[in-house]
Amino acid sequence: MNARITCPTLATKVVSAEEAVKHIYPGDSVGISGFTGAGYPKAMPAALAARMQAARDRGEEFRVALWSGASTAPDADGVLAAVDGISSRLPYNSDPVLRAEINAGSVDYLDAHLSHSAQHMWFGFYGNLDIAVVEVTAVLPDGLLVPSSSVGNNKTWLDQADKVILEVNHWQPREFEGFHDIYHRTALPPNRLPIPLTEPDQRIGEPYLKVDPAKVVAVVETNAPDRNSAFSPVDEVSRAIAEHLVDFLRHEVKAGRMPAELLPIQSGVGNVANAVLAGLDASEFTGLTAFTEVIQDGMLDLLDSGTLRFASATSFGLSDAGVRRFMDNINAYKGKILLRSEEISNHPELVRRLGVIAMNGMIEADIYGNVNSTHVMGSSVMNGIGGSGDFARNAFLNFFVSPSTAKGGAISSIVPMVSHVDHTEHDVHVVVTEQGLADLRGLSPRRRAERVIEHAAHPKFRDALTEYVARAEAARPTARHTPHLLDESLSWHQRFLDSGQM
Amino acid sequence: MNARITCPTLATKVVSAEEAVKHIYPGDSVGISGFTGAGYPKAMPAALAARMQAARDRGEEFRVALWSGASTAPDADGVLAAVDGISSRLPYNSDPVLRAEINAGSVDYLDAHLSHSAQHMWFGFYGNLDIAVVEVTAVLPDGLLVPSSSVGNNKTWLDQADKVILEVNHWQPREFEGFHDIYHRTALPPNRLPIPLTEPDQRIGEPYLKVDPAKVVAVVETNAPDRNSAFSPVDEVSRAIAEHLVDFLRHEVKAGRMPAELLPIQSGVGNVANAVLAGLDASEFTGLTAFTEVIQDGMLDLLDSGTLRFASATSFGLSDAGVRRFMDNINAYKGKILLRSEEISNHPELVRRLGVIAMNGMIEADIYGNVNSTHVMGSSVMNGIGGSGDFARNAFLNFFVSPSTAKGGAISSIVPMVSHVDHTEHDVHVVVTEQGLADLRGLSPRRRAERVIEHAAHPKFRDALTEYVARAEAARPTARHTPHLLDESLSWHQRFLDSGQM
Repeated sequence: MNARITCPTLATKVVSAEEAVKHIYPGDSVGISGFTGAGYPKAMPAALAARMQAARDRGEEFRVALWSGASTAPDADGVLAAVDGISSRLPYNSDPVLRAEINAGSVDYLDAHLSHSAQHMWFGFYGNLDIAVVEVTAVLPDGLLVPSSSVGNNKTWLDQADKVILEVNHWQPREFEGFHDIYHRTALPPNRLPIPLTEPDQRIGEPYLKVDPAKVVAVVETNAPDRNSAFSPVDEVSRAIAEHLVDFLRHEVKAGRMPAELLPIQSGVGNVANAVLAGLDASEFTGLTAFTEVIQDGMLDLLDSGTLRFASATSFGLSDAGVRRFMDNINAYKGKILLRSEEISNHPELVRRLGVIAMNGMIEADIYGNVNSTHVMGSSVMNGIGGSGDFARNAFLNFFVSPSTAKGGAISSIVPMVSHVDHTEHDVHVVVTEQGLADLRGLSPRRRAERVIEHAAHPKFRDALTEYVARAEAARPTARHTPHLLDESLSWHQRFLDSGQM
Repeated sequence: MNARITCPTLATKVVSAEEAVKHIYPGDSVGISGFTGAGYPKAMPAALAARMQAARDRGEEFRVALWSGASTAPDADGVLAAVDGISSRLPYNSDPVLRAEINAGSVDYLDAHLSHSAQHMWFGFYGNLDIAVVEVTAVLPDGLLVPSSSVGNNKTWLDQADKVILEVNHWQPREFEGFHDIYHRTALPPNRLPIPLTEPDQRIGEPYLKVDPAKVVAVVETNAPDRNSAFSPVDEVSRAIAEHLVDFLRHEVKAGRMPAELLPIQSGVGNVANAVLAGLDASEFTGLTAFTEVIQDGMLDLLDSGTLRFASATSFGLSDAGVRRFMDNINAYKGKILLRSEEISNHPELVRRLGVIAMNGMIEADIYGNVNSTHVMGSSVMNGIGGSGDFARNAFLNFFVSPSTAKGGAISSIVPMVSHVDHTEHDVHVVVTEQGLADLRGLSPRRRAERVIEHAAHPKFRDALTEYVARAEAARPTARHTPHLLDESLSWHQRFLDSGQM
């Protein structure tokens, strides 16, 4: 008996990955674990890709619908995309190979609010889930599963799939037991009850995932690392964004609109988000909590320094150095971190109740406060909306952050009209760039335009934006609530496509 | 002692409206009762307008910021707008005089999710509330207030305002006592608790509003009717929309995705929404519940027939005939209707928990599933987003309904790109026109486009829409996730502005 698989029933099901993937058929819907580069199945994707390639060599079609927690890594999404093995994908992706296929139009991508994905599956909106492939850290004697470095949609996939393949990854620290809080009392309407969570550090569930052993068709052992990108060092632009944001929090506390220990923070993933965390860590704030999606390196810094006393999330998103640091001190982090299902980490009910401070990156904002988080020049998807909508809509206070320009100044992140809307004018509180911070709360669209242009736009684009508003106001004197020139509103993007310069 | 004002302290404060409005000063923020044409103050607006006009005649400025539950009526918003007395307005408006001022750019309008308005005021996002003017049905001996025909934001305004004027309207039936459920346990983060409601007919609060008597500066007696528009008779187009929608619900029940008595319904206000209610009433469905904003005439029909067994809302929106019918049978409706604060009627926590079926009108949808609920040709606001975002985002299932054309066929309600986004592609489930029903659940943007064009667009616009997608796909082969031609995507709207025809 293997020390990681102590359930007698499930121990009999251990096979190779090559054997396991024989349970996956062309046209299946496959629900995998994984959120950021953490906790995804390490062996199944390559084995399935080989099977797909063999089928292709025989002239047969072999593609699957792939559902996950969120993004995965090159050895999951990447290897399957490389053999054109993914017909459709939800609810999030950041893999470059798969992104190219999505943008070429050969893969159908459903970019969904992460808090919606589990329930929409359960509602039956996505069709049947043929098989789940879920990485775990260990299988206990009674069949309970110790989750690994992400939870994501694992509970739903395990509950709802017809068949289950478990991957037991020896690389994941056995000490993960106790780092998870899996809420098993979700239900379909009309049988839903209040979710009893009132503090980020509260346990409302159990440390284990569960599975009906009769559904488990294979157990595969692996010993392979998670793969997350390293973060870039904090640059001047990110540092300036962080300073504006931290200053503003200070100002809100002083104005009496927020407690000194703030409210639970949520931080998106990426270099700017990491810089904001660094800014908080360098500040006087202390005793904070996080109610967020991902524990990235910056969160460990905050936990280490005591700036953060607790973090609730659904996944780790650590660099190699971050992983080493976490593993070396894992027992010190116990009790300071809980991973939950993404339907709980991102739940509107909880985000609103806790009064989360949401901080998310964006691709662009427009002068009236609409934000584009997903599309480059209106048509190509970058990654996806992820949890940004779950958090922003229900937050006590939300920030959207970005450098004011991109591509060496060729692109303005502040435009007359965003080329795609992910967060509407009704949902955006504060826009921050290295130029400054535009507080849009309580303002009408024209007042927002003044503030966004003055405080967030890059100086070299300010005059053109101001002139746009003035000409739009003049052109239609009875249409000045949100003044636009519809034959010009997207011309900045078109100009970039035509000339490489907005 | 007046039979409607039996509190000794408050009875001493009865004055004329002209006296009462002396407590309102230029530049004040004034929070009024009112939601649809129900429950707004009947005497204050005209008296304040007279005072404003007198000031203006003396060469003095007199404008106020006006906050409400939602829309009001010509004798509230209308009379104040007529003297240019409103400097800014939130969170919703449908008054034509005020709308013209907003669109002329002379009034700042903050068009907000209704579930956000109370908490954003309390968070301090709107600044100080100088005075509240709230209509009630009666004042009880202990100072408790029997609400009138809408609740809206009254609880928050009464709690948060520096001063309060009460209007006691003798026209409102004294039997209203017991029709309301006011939840007084809301709190600011980090002190929020789960809201204990799990069924639409559950009482979680008290039948009364409360006010600190020391803040009440005046009590005014009125005897004036609510004013709601009559509905048009159901026409062929609305009937067809209703039939598609009811058929689809039938189909969902048959597919096992919904119980036979459905899930709580929410219905927007308007003729199409009323037609949908009529369609439900004519169907085999029975024993339904509603968790909605407004009880309109169609809801009374459903309650009378037993199709609906209970309705939770925040307001009545009855025609004159509907009011008479309600008043004549008011005791029969008791126990079948509860009015709540709009922060509760529209609460994301509750909408998601109950699994509401949300049905809302729209101005236009685009082929990729984005919906515009608020703006005509991108710049002029029509009314506002109201509760449509609260319900749609958190619904079990949402529908957006509209005739497929407007202005006698000059405008297509299905366009390449909406000119304003209120509900994003991540949030829209089903689009319904008289042409048919486009079920967009689980689909990628290009698959949505096929379905919207085939099932929802008017035949005379279908080819042009299909050609648009084909040309967009051809133009940028690596940008086919959401194919757009940015120099053409809004050209349909521009063409209408230029030529009167899309």
